[in-house]
Amino acid sequence: MTKPDAGLDSPGARLLQAQGIESSAFTRFMGTRLRAFSPGRVEAELDLRPELTQHHGQAHGGVIGYLADTVSAWAAASTGIDVVMSEYKLNFLAAAHGEVLWARGEVLKAGRRQVIVRSDVYATHEGQETHVATALATIAAVNGRREEETNAGQ
Amino acid sequence: MTKPDAGLDSPGARLLQAQGIESSAFTRFMGTRLRAFSPGRVEAELDLRPELTQHHGQAHGGVIGYLADTVSAWAAASTGIDVVMSEYKLNFLAAAHGEVLWARGEVLKAGRRQVIVRSDVYATHEGQETHVATALATIAAVNGRREEETNAGQ
Amino acid sequence: MTKPDAGLDSPGARLLQAQGIESSAFTRFMGTRLRAFSPGRVEAELDLRPELTQHHGQAHGGVIGYLADTVSAWAAASTGIDVVMSEYKLNFLAAAHGEVLWARGEVLKAGRRQVIVRSDVYATHEGQETHVATALATIAAVNGRREEETNAGQ
Amino acid sequence: MTKPDAGLDSPGARLLQAQGIESSAFTRFMGTRLRAFSPGRVEAELDLRPELTQHHGQAHGGVIGYLADTVSAWAAASTGIDVVMSEYKLNFLAAAHGEVLWARGEVLKAGRRQVIVRSDVYATHEGQETHVATALATIAAVNGRREEETNAGQ
Repeated sequence: MTKPDAGLDSPGARLLQAQGIESSAFTRFMGTRLRAFSPGRVEAELDLRPELTQHHGQAHGGVIGYLADTVSAWAAASTGIDVVMSEYKLNFLAAAHGEVLWARGEVLKAGRRQVIVRSDVYATHEGQETHVATALATIAAVNGRREEETNAGQ
Repeated sequence: MTKPDAGLDSPGARLLQAQGIESSAFTRFMGTRLRAFSPGRVEAELDLRPELTQHHGQAHGGVIGYLADTVSAWAAASTGIDVVMSEYKLNFLAAAHGEVLWARGEVLKAGRRQVIVRSDVYATHEGQETHVATALATIAAVNGRREEETNAGQ
Repeated sequence: MTKPDAGLDSPGARLLQAQGIESSAFTRFMGTRLRAFSPGRVEAELDLRPELTQHHGQAHGGVIGYLADTVSAWAAASTGIDVVMSEYKLNFLAAAHGEVLWARGEVLKAGRRQVIVRSDVYATHEGQETHVATALATIAAVNGRREEETNAGQ
Repeated sequence: MTKPDAGLDSPGARLLQAQGIESSAFTRFMGTRLRAFSPGRVEAELDLRPELTQHHGQAHGGVIGYLADTVSAWAAASTGIDVVMSEYKLNFLAAAHGEVLWARGEVLKAGRRQVIVRSDVYATHEGQETHVATALATIAAVNGRREEETNAGQ
């Protein structure tokens, strides 16, 4: 019996776990975990250890940018193609204090040549969420995608 | 005798060293060094240690984004104000193989409320440079800037 | 009796109508209309006249960018401050065929110095909507905003 | 005898004139002219007629965004491929007063699947130039590009 392609135990999530986390030294270095998975919608998180902060005791902007970049690529990959990040734009919204930093990436459009992903980053502090950044990314489909698998947006 | 405000030994560079590097845990964790300093133009670099790479053996995109973000903030700070990163956009141009990753940030406009910085990231591999990313950032002046210190220019 | 500050007949909408449309030659030239108004959420639209198209018979990208820019500024202004557009990033999602092009801008964060707005552009063709672009913009508050009027995002 | 592929009278410039200007209603509506042409580097301009301004008597931001978008697409097309604009990010630097608005697009990287272009917009007022905006764009190659024609460079 095959598992459905959603949830952390699904084939898609396992492939992402193997390719995106276990074989990427930096992703392990940052301690990034997959938090939720369904095609076109992925969440990732990491613990805000002291070494990931900056001088005001909050998450360094580079950690926030890293997590937005990562979750955007993972959301694009969750649509079943090999991807390479092309570009992204990130707006910082609030200081990121807390124990956990997490992000959600959502596919806005999965085209033949590229995938557009919106992502949002949150900090969790004593159970309270703060929306700390929002990003918009373009991810290239390395080998393209078959036409019948595309969608034209939401 | 006062030192001129350019070069790694200038007062501006020393302030950046103290505020941007020594008091920022993540910047030390990444091993980022100031490489060149003059008002409005700053370079930073880091060694591409194995833990900063991803599965293809090249610098992880998150490391490239981090360095572009950092050098943009430093270039803005080099104009003599307290800064907070507002937003940036980054385009990846080529895979980043090599021993050293470095970046240059250049102020395009230093206004009263915000500073616009263009930055470029390069990988050095056996003496050869590859242009791996380019970014465009908006940095807010925390307490503003006196009008006579602004420029409207390139 | 005062009108509530939402709806096309509210004081906020009337101010926008006077400042953003009637006194702006280009906005009139493009034929832009206010379509919906509430603080932090504004819609604008224009008719896709032949002169606003390009060689494939669809809306020119410049028209789409213009509408995203305009609705972003209007959404920021709807929070009660004088604004100046700082920057935006726009992703094109699909070709824009149809009779009407419209856009919605939503404030993600209204800070003291700047407002972050997400906007989406749609084309309406024979009653059917296509999501043609999405944008993320930073708008500066010209004279700042009193602290008690800010929000820290969603 | 063939003309070299640079200059306003070259085959590349004539193709752009036919495809980008004469067959695009909006481009004619805006009065956009090709100003300089060489592969990977293109300039465009338009007269700042009263209907292209906003309430402060300066060029409307939408006109600036339009010109940056257009010159970016043209610079990408000047490398000899069919293009479609994917996304861009634009920073406004200064108010655009003057008689002429012009822009230069320069290709940073011409890859197989996409072209990265940096563009800058200037206003000319009584012979004096003001740098009014800078943009960074990603343009997709509709049918790809043969590998031997790509560059990886600046």
